[in-house]
Amino acid sequence: MNRTGPRVAVVGATGAVGQELLDLLAERDVPLSELTLWSSPRSAGTKISFRGEELTVRELPGEGGLDADIIFASASSGISREHAFRWAEHGATVIDNSSAWRLDDRVPLIIPEVNAEAARTNQGVIANPNCSTIIALMALAPLHRAFGLERATVATYQAVSGAGAAGVTELEEQSRAVLSGSEPATDVFQHVIAFNLFSHDSEIGADGYNDEERKLLEESRKILGVPELAISATCVRVPVFRAHSEAVHTEFSRPVTPEEAREVLAAAPGLKVVDDRDSNTFPMPVAASGRDDILVGRIREDTSRPGSLALFIAGDQVRKGAALNAVQIGELFAG
Amino acid sequence: MNRTGPRVAVVGATGAVGQELLDLLAERDVPLSELTLWSSPRSAGTKISFRGEELTVRELPGEGGLDADIIFASASSGISREHAFRWAEHGATVIDNSSAWRLDDRVPLIIPEVNAEAARTNQGVIANPNCSTIIALMALAPLHRAFGLERATVATYQAVSGAGAAGVTELEEQSRAVLSGSEPATDVFQHVIAFNLFSHDSEIGADGYNDEERKLLEESRKILGVPELAISATCVRVPVFRAHSEAVHTEFSRPVTPEEAREVLAAAPGLKVVDDRDSNTFPMPVAASGRDDILVGRIREDTSRPGSLALFIAGDQVRKGAALNAVQIGELFAG
Repeated sequence: MNRTGPRVAVVGATGAVGQELLDLLAERDVPLSELTLWSSPRSAGTKISFRGEELTVRELPGEGGLDADIIFASASSGISREHAFRWAEHGATVIDNSSAWRLDDRVPLIIPEVNAEAARTNQGVIANPNCSTIIALMALAPLHRAFGLERATVATYQAVSGAGAAGVTELEEQSRAVLSGSEPATDVFQHVIAFNLFSHDSEIGADGYNDEERKLLEESRKILGVPELAISATCVRVPVFRAHSEAVHTEFSRPVTPEEAREVLAAAPGLKVVDDRDSNTFPMPVAASGRDDILVGRIREDTSRPGSLALFIAGDQVRKGAALNAVQIGELFAG
Repeated sequence: MNRTGPRVAVVGATGAVGQELLDLLAERDVPLSELTLWSSPRSAGTKISFRGEELTVRELPGEGGLDADIIFASASSGISREHAFRWAEHGATVIDNSSAWRLDDRVPLIIPEVNAEAARTNQGVIANPNCSTIIALMALAPLHRAFGLERATVATYQAVSGAGAAGVTELEEQSRAVLSGSEPATDVFQHVIAFNLFSHDSEIGADGYNDEERKLLEESRKILGVPELAISATCVRVPVFRAHSEAVHTEFSRPVTPEEAREVLAAAPGLKVVDDRDSNTFPMPVAASGRDDILVGRIREDTSRPGSLALFIAGDQVRKGAALNAVQIGELFAG
């Protein structure tokens, strides 16, 4: 540990995103003077090695603070709803990966490459956006700044890792079952995911939109600061282990050429243009997995409206879609 | 065989669509007085059983006709380009499943539920549309008739069966390799398809659109009879064995409510509305596989434009997306 850095706590340390957070804190050499790990009673006692030190995951206390300067909360929305502001009152900056506070007016919703400045004014709780939102906006935000985004429609191709380690295991086991001719068992997902796909497994509102789609709409509007942004999404779970993809159609306040868009996207931080028509190489989930950069390609005119654009994006939803984005928010405060 | 029906020939009888054609001719009890099967020299000699009779696949002659009243051509575009009009000159009605003649002014491009009447005026060759086009238009055409389609954007989720039996085998073998921790080999597809997805594996034009997308655009315009229809598509190959899915956003000449759309779609032939929000049950490829009907659901307002619609469609691309549609065209002439 570094004696001069902040004291850091990770809540939900044993989950998929928690694990990725710890990997990233080590890998990026984030300065920290102390690291404590917290979880539900069920996982408390687990030993986790960090920078050669063995740490024991502790049970989350029901009251008081966590004696930390920065808390990465990567547990359930219920946990964040109950504890986040209390921890903040005890002096911590809480970076919350749940959906509990994302739309709360007191809580900045941050993608560092997009709206880092909005994190400065906070009441101790900062929210990490949903994975599909981060992946879409890494490409849409620079285009918005350059050309004024007026409308976007998104169709997603979402990996099972969005449902945690259990989702990954389910895809593996179901795939084995199908390939050996036996009936795949469903547990995490309602429908079979192996060699299939289905509308996102989240609750559906009266307007027919599921929660995943609603998050993409509402969070995008908040992050871009365009409360009336015309945006729609169809969120679909596909049999991919890790990394989400998104087909996006966009319209701007003025006609935009693919060349102009490519130039803006090539210069945007955290984004890599993968758009090689000659070799038919575009963003793919296997190429995005384990990478920090979000991949964007298939940059072309939307033939249904002159001057508008179509894109295809892929990004690691555990990494930039969750843990990396949270760590980057933390780094804004760790300096 | 039925003594009074037409003489039928199937060209490309040993391919995936050819096989499905034969199954459908038997299953639907299409009246035919004679059935001859044809293929390239490579597959000639293959024995195929049809309604209890063993038929031998013969090598396609380089000239002359095929002594048939109806010819289902399901070989390559090259074969169709070379032979179709000559066979027609010898008196046959050629129903061509290739892309060779689809945009030719002399050739009607037919989805029987959509534009059967256009098949009446023909010069002996009728084209079967591309699978993605058929699946999209089975839902879009009735909406167009009711409300006047002005714009559509489509993102596809296309099964490997579109690349034939070899595509299916490749997904199987690659999936086994990945699950056992070994490196998947690529042969049919340029990129690994197992637990991955990629931009459709067809040639890409100067505008950045691949052939699959171009087909969807141009064929839709021709079939709907709207040469200037504003339409765009992103075609993506996903690790699904059979049945394509499509996320569609649509705009009409007047505001349309989801309820109006649902009523129109529920009454449309060959289409089944699967739109159960309470149980989160919507169109899925496994549910569409082996079915005649195209499934449509997630019927809701496109939140990016009041009065417009978002839909999700799934359909068996070997069946209604290819062989069934061809047989239905044949039935228009077999009566």
